[in-house]
Amino acid sequence: MRFIFTFLCIISLMREVSPQGLLSDNDKIIIDSLFNGALRQRTAYEWLKDICVNIGPRLSGSDASNKSLDWAVNKLNGMSNVKVYRQELMVPYWERGKVEKAYLISNGNQTELKVAALGGSIGTGSSLLASQVIELKSFEELEQRKAEVKNKIVFFNNEFPKTVLNTFEAYGQLARYRVFGAREAAKFGAVAVIVRSITSSEDNVPHVGVMIYNDTIPKIPAVAIGVLDAGVLHNSIVKDKEALVSIQLSCQILPDRPSANIIAEIKGTEKPEEVIVVSGHFDSWDKGQGAHDDGAGCVQSMEVIKLFSDMNYKPLHTIRCVLFMNEENGSRGSAKYTELSTEKHLAAIESDRGGFLPNGFSFDGDSLLFEKLREFIPQLNKWGVWYFQKGGSGADIGRIKDCKMKLGYVPDSQRYFEVHHSDNDVIGAVNPRELELGSAVNAMMVYILDKYF
Amino acid sequence: MRFIFTFLCIISLMREVSPQGLLSDNDKIIIDSLFNGALRQRTAYEWLKDICVNIGPRLSGSDASNKSLDWAVNKLNGMSNVKVYRQELMVPYWERGKVEKAYLISNGNQTELKVAALGGSIGTGSSLLASQVIELKSFEELEQRKAEVKNKIVFFNNEFPKTVLNTFEAYGQLARYRVFGAREAAKFGAVAVIVRSITSSEDNVPHVGVMIYNDTIPKIPAVAIGVLDAGVLHNSIVKDKEALVSIQLSCQILPDRPSANIIAEIKGTEKPEEVIVVSGHFDSWDKGQGAHDDGAGCVQSMEVIKLFSDMNYKPLHTIRCVLFMNEENGSRGSAKYTELSTEKHLAAIESDRGGFLPNGFSFDGDSLLFEKLREFIPQLNKWGVWYFQKGGSGADIGRIKDCKMKLGYVPDSQRYFEVHHSDNDVIGAVNPRELELGSAVNAMMVYILDKYF
Repeated sequence: MRFIFTFLCIISLMREVSPQGLLSDNDKIIIDSLFNGALRQRTAYEWLKDICVNIGPRLSGSDASNKSLDWAVNKLNGMSNVKVYRQELMVPYWERGKVEKAYLISNGNQTELKVAALGGSIGTGSSLLASQVIELKSFEELEQRKAEVKNKIVFFNNEFPKTVLNTFEAYGQLARYRVFGAREAAKFGAVAVIVRSITSSEDNVPHVGVMIYNDTIPKIPAVAIGVLDAGVLHNSIVKDKEALVSIQLSCQILPDRPSANIIAEIKGTEKPEEVIVVSGHFDSWDKGQGAHDDGAGCVQSMEVIKLFSDMNYKPLHTIRCVLFMNEENGSRGSAKYTELSTEKHLAAIESDRGGFLPNGFSFDGDSLLFEKLREFIPQLNKWGVWYFQKGGSGADIGRIKDCKMKLGYVPDSQRYFEVHHSDNDVIGAVNPRELELGSAVNAMMVYILDKYF
Repeated sequence: MRFIFTFLCIISLMREVSPQGLLSDNDKIIIDSLFNGALRQRTAYEWLKDICVNIGPRLSGSDASNKSLDWAVNKLNGMSNVKVYRQELMVPYWERGKVEKAYLISNGNQTELKVAALGGSIGTGSSLLASQVIELKSFEELEQRKAEVKNKIVFFNNEFPKTVLNTFEAYGQLARYRVFGAREAAKFGAVAVIVRSITSSEDNVPHVGVMIYNDTIPKIPAVAIGVLDAGVLHNSIVKDKEALVSIQLSCQILPDRPSANIIAEIKGTEKPEEVIVVSGHFDSWDKGQGAHDDGAGCVQSMEVIKLFSDMNYKPLHTIRCVLFMNEENGSRGSAKYTELSTEKHLAAIESDRGGFLPNGFSFDGDSLLFEKLREFIPQLNKWGVWYFQKGGSGADIGRIKDCKMKLGYVPDSQRYFEVHHSDNDVIGAVNPRELELGSAVNAMMVYILDKYF
């Protein structure tokens, strides 16, 4: 009797700690066929190539972004049992314009610097902006040296932290200077801001991204500078205290424009009122082709729907692909989605970390649900999924209310900040197999969520 | 009492299944500093760039391969507490020569086909080789259609199996046609063999590799053809039964040449007579720059020694970097190493799967050692290591006798067969961070083996 009790305790404990046997043989067949479909047909990759080459980058409100909406509806409309619709909305519209120049003037020589206006920056107007440069590392140093800043161009020159393994963490350490550098420097009378591109690359391609003004503080122009030219500028102002930089930008903020989210869904058979979202954002910056950011997440989300549609899969819950508009500079798409949403969400997955090799998922939600889902992970190793951690699911799905689980699709991060927000973010930087594995991994997760939650 | 017994059972069971607490805080500091050193200095990447750009591919016995030996000795000699030496040996020598042409002749038109001789192939001599082509999928089909083969060129035309997740498995399904295709086809009177390149790419770059004759069977020339031209050839012979292919190759097998393995080691402080090897092969094919195959594994192994040397680490066992010569077409380097080896080997690691993102290791050895090492793996997730499976440690270390554990370093395989044995295998296809993470992961494994085994 004592032995039996002990034995039962051990068995019950083993069940707690051992996740074997959760996926059935049929599950494995279905998952294999999701992977086969993605890797054989390469639909997401062909879509991405099409949109990158034939439409190009999709800045919110731009003609290209609106063309891309029609493109997506057209592609999604071809699938059986899939309902496709738009959520109309207005988006902010910023335009880079034609002129974007900077020169370093030192010892009678004039050298062009490779720069690009940050998204949302004002232009320089008709008068020439030229001033001395003060190089700083941080807002703390700005505060300490605030007396020196007046009428100067502030140059935030921080090297990308190479030793941080997760490059999103490295990015997170520096993004504030791009986003808030102009606002903080303007407080002390700076006339413009130059931010070293936040990139792990050692080339000279400017990496842009959003910057944010505060209406109570003067607005000053802000640019990103290529990493190599950041070095040129640094060396020059160390040697020549009188060195000047001139900047000319024609970018401007224009009135809001109409745009939309695109939605495609397969109705649930048992709980149609409970939704599983798989998503990306369809807008991009105006540099490169918006291939990894976030064309990849969009075509992967579209392919999830296609993979289930192709196998005539009848989900228990409603499976919904959402292509959010305007993640980069306003998040109006996610706001509109949340405003119009009346259903419960079982789960929402966001794919916005590039189309690289799948690692797994991040998770926001209740700990018991986290533990339940975590038990599946060791069984997903054979499909390359091993990473599962709490926190950081995504910006667009972050707003959704009444959502039990929010998951961020996590591919490998090593190459992301070589391309992010730059002319490097083109289809040539996307590997077809890596992209397609991401589609399959997202579909696999949707399948598990649908069947077991 | 009963409760206590049950409780103890559970505790003991938890210890069995729970691997927590194996790595100490000091271990983690040392491992972090290995990663920091690799990612900050990028020594392996700078070395690889140097050897790729300034020396180029390193076919066994070639002048470039011998130059690379001096290069490696020179780099390794600069490290403190590191003993560097050569193991002299003779290697087979095959030369591609200047002429390498193939033409498709159909309906009065002549179209050039992109081909490259397989390593070890005889040339076509002075007479023109031109014949009709028979397309086959397998040796089984060859056997069935053997009556049709005489005086023909046999064309093994197999698509790379895209749906196989591990591309080494996919490669393994097709490699036999490249290695043994000529021998098998010659049995039935074929005059040459064309093998579709074994690659996941959809370009037209031929991917070569070793082919093996049998002295009792006539030797016939063998070439790889680019994937796009494999399609051209296929379509042409389907339409035109009289289509011919002409092949002209000046490649030849020449007398053996002198070469060497390069070894660098840090003497063990407690068990100097027990060795931990970390290794790659220093020869490559003569296409591209031999960047991933296996320049990557070599510079990573060299960097493991440098990382320990830089931190003045005193290992318990002797840590030895071996750059094996002639893995690609003879394995004379590993044979020589084994012949000269008198010590015990605690472990040997081989890195010969490219310089891509680390996943983990494969393992050959006793099951109890496998289980002991496996307990560390969950703790290595934070450094990106998650894969640990039995089988397939490596070709060069495979020969070493008296070696308790043999490990294959396993990076991600998705992009490997885009570059393998081709003009695509150049430094531009190597990502610095991915390569450096591999150095650090190999060093981490050496550290754990040294301290805990």
